[in-house]
Amino acid sequence: MPPAPLRLGLAGLGTVGTGVVQILQNHAALIAARAGRPVVITAVSARSKGKDRGVDLSGFAWEDDPVALAKRDDIDVFVEVMGGHEGAARAATEAAIAAGKDVVTANKALLAHYGQDLALAAEAAGRVIRFEAAVAGGIPVIKALTEGLAGNQIKRVMGVMNGSCNYILTRMQNEGLSYEAVFDAAQKLGYLEADPNLDVGGIDAGHKLSLLAAIAFGTKVSFDAVELEGIGAISIDDIRLAADMGYRIKLLGVAQMTGRGLEQRMTPCLVPADSPLGQLQGGTNMVVLEGDSVGQIVMRGAGAGMGPTASAVMGDVIDIARGFRLPTFGIPATALATPTPAKAATPAPYYLRMTLVDKPGALAKIATCLGEAGVSIDQMRQYGHEGTNAPVLIVTHKATRDDIDHAVGLFAATGVLVGAPVALRIEEV
Amino acid sequence: MPPAPLRLGLAGLGTVGTGVVQILQNHAALIAARAGRPVVITAVSARSKGKDRGVDLSGFAWEDDPVALAKRDDIDVFVEVMGGHEGAARAATEAAIAAGKDVVTANKALLAHYGQDLALAAEAAGRVIRFEAAVAGGIPVIKALTEGLAGNQIKRVMGVMNGSCNYILTRMQNEGLSYEAVFDAAQKLGYLEADPNLDVGGIDAGHKLSLLAAIAFGTKVSFDAVELEGIGAISIDDIRLAADMGYRIKLLGVAQMTGRGLEQRMTPCLVPADSPLGQLQGGTNMVVLEGDSVGQIVMRGAGAGMGPTASAVMGDVIDIARGFRLPTFGIPATALATPTPAKAATPAPYYLRMTLVDKPGALAKIATCLGEAGVSIDQMRQYGHEGTNAPVLIVTHKATRDDIDHAVGLFAATGVLVGAPVALRIEEV
Repeated sequence: MPPAPLRLGLAGLGTVGTGVVQILQNHAALIAARAGRPVVITAVSARSKGKDRGVDLSGFAWEDDPVALAKRDDIDVFVEVMGGHEGAARAATEAAIAAGKDVVTANKALLAHYGQDLALAAEAAGRVIRFEAAVAGGIPVIKALTEGLAGNQIKRVMGVMNGSCNYILTRMQNEGLSYEAVFDAAQKLGYLEADPNLDVGGIDAGHKLSLLAAIAFGTKVSFDAVELEGIGAISIDDIRLAADMGYRIKLLGVAQMTGRGLEQRMTPCLVPADSPLGQLQGGTNMVVLEGDSVGQIVMRGAGAGMGPTASAVMGDVIDIARGFRLPTFGIPATALATPTPAKAATPAPYYLRMTLVDKPGALAKIATCLGEAGVSIDQMRQYGHEGTNAPVLIVTHKATRDDIDHAVGLFAATGVLVGAPVALRIEEV
Repeated sequence: MPPAPLRLGLAGLGTVGTGVVQILQNHAALIAARAGRPVVITAVSARSKGKDRGVDLSGFAWEDDPVALAKRDDIDVFVEVMGGHEGAARAATEAAIAAGKDVVTANKALLAHYGQDLALAAEAAGRVIRFEAAVAGGIPVIKALTEGLAGNQIKRVMGVMNGSCNYILTRMQNEGLSYEAVFDAAQKLGYLEADPNLDVGGIDAGHKLSLLAAIAFGTKVSFDAVELEGIGAISIDDIRLAADMGYRIKLLGVAQMTGRGLEQRMTPCLVPADSPLGQLQGGTNMVVLEGDSVGQIVMRGAGAGMGPTASAVMGDVIDIARGFRLPTFGIPATALATPTPAKAATPAPYYLRMTLVDKPGALAKIATCLGEAGVSIDQMRQYGHEGTNAPVLIVTHKATRDDIDHAVGLFAATGVLVGAPVALRIEEV
């Protein structure tokens, strides 16, 4: 008797869903050989039934309601590529688990907010939730971290995981354009979410980081504890000055377990220009995994788009077809620890840029504040005056974010500052 | 009832075997949580029982003979980190499969030579063979290719997978040293195999490429069909001239399915200096996977050493503990196709360096040969004469290796050549 096919219910027929349909139609035999059984779509659901998506949907049952799709008796796996962390996506995913289906999802926001509850429900029901497509698009990083590096105590996870932000920052760098100019261009090209703050505010990338951190450190997903800072305050001046010193500015996610707790940051950082992260151009993603045995593993690839995201979905589907089953975050959800959030506990050098009023002693006052906060200066550069104000660049020795914030707080009382200073961490990569 | 432990028989207590012992002793609880059950070593085997390896072996049964270890009733998985593709390693692996054990191996040579037979035997017995540690050390590339990218038709696989060769080539590049000088230094540092031709002849890296190709293209492992060329003929002149043109020379493995058959090459190639492969320094490995949906995935990490290799072994062991089971090369060994070997079928630009006698018309004769072979010239540079002979550098337009070999054959008959010409492929990466 030939093995029974694995039957998918596909919720969402946007770019990713259409990509999944295409792969299954183009590579049915190849996938059956690899999966050990045929993989078929039984039923689909999307907002608009009539829309031409360039793929033949005639063989699939149609459901207007993804919750109804999730409960169908003729599906084994609910594939959720609708997006949105409330409403239909959440309800349908919960319904799928309740109905005894495995789940494959590309929904980072859903898992960042409700991952723990969903994992508990799935594991209680003996079901799996797989989400390779939710983090770094086509890069099989969830698999590398959860499975390939499972013999390691993970020391640090880093990543550039929002292609739109990296596109903006590298165009600013390469073309000398302002943030505003590239932001507008990116929006016109459709590179940004309807709410662009999801991208440039670091929220989307923060969702992804919180999922990696849960796996890496065996802790409950704690998106609310991610220190989030977007790229909106990065000026072309910062890009240029950083480049002068041999750095690039990236929206960099870093998660590590420290003596004070779990540090999770998604913030603009300086990284060496000649490092793999520094060299990353355009919309490409990169994730760096550091384990106590394996050392540093760097993975690079497309972080979004039809093909890459659908590839990640299919990797999860084929794993399920092969019978691979493991807890959502690598260890049972009941065993995940509640992390203590640690705000940028690891000391690092910081880049500080500020503008001072052109008065004698202004710089001395700033230096005094730094000294009071326990922050020592590695380099200081004062640039030619623009009118009456003096741009100043300081690179500190290693300091904690608290000390830097303390110093910046002291600056305010000196009355020598024009505007707010920029403080960016220099990450050792 | 707590889940039964997974019991390992560990054959080999060199660097890698000792690393496996260390990981299991240091991270027993972490690994049990991830694997869903304890993972324990029951018995070990190595050449010298008395040797101090810095780890406590007192809890393990000892076998002098790895074949006896492989057959023990109290092991579930035979972990082979002895090395060598004949003799004990082969006999013990065959014995393990015959005795109904799963196998985890770091032995690329064994699988390159006997992978098909071993896979057939294992699959007939319902057993798995996992070999993440055999290719690119700690980089989880077998997993990425076999599982993460399983929804893709693979277009091309490339890799720098012998750290010793890359160490030699990057030291030549960075320090302007001759091949011989760096080779001697590498040998003194213990970076080379006892038979250094395994490294610098490309054999070790060729073994790895043949395993990747089998998975990527669903074909039987065909190490004998790998076009092998070592780095021994690479001179500092070639390194410098390539750098002048914006290239680096790497011992690069490339496997791709062409209209004429399966192309597998492990040869020195020129790659752009600013590409990820071109930037790869020292003993680090890099593998590039290209799929029709996912595009290009680049993975970088340590290709050798105790920690990275043991990490890869443990990833496979934990997969088995979790119950992940799949055919050795991703599809059943009975379904693997017999590939038609295609020698460098894909056209590419070539770098040609030669020395001509200082006679009128010498260069014209070379150009005529190229024309006769159907090879057109993109760039030609004639360098200042050394005594009476003239070094000449030619970069061709895209040509097949057959056409290049044809042209080089014609050169010989002209009588204008001093010594043998160097012909290196310029790979598009």
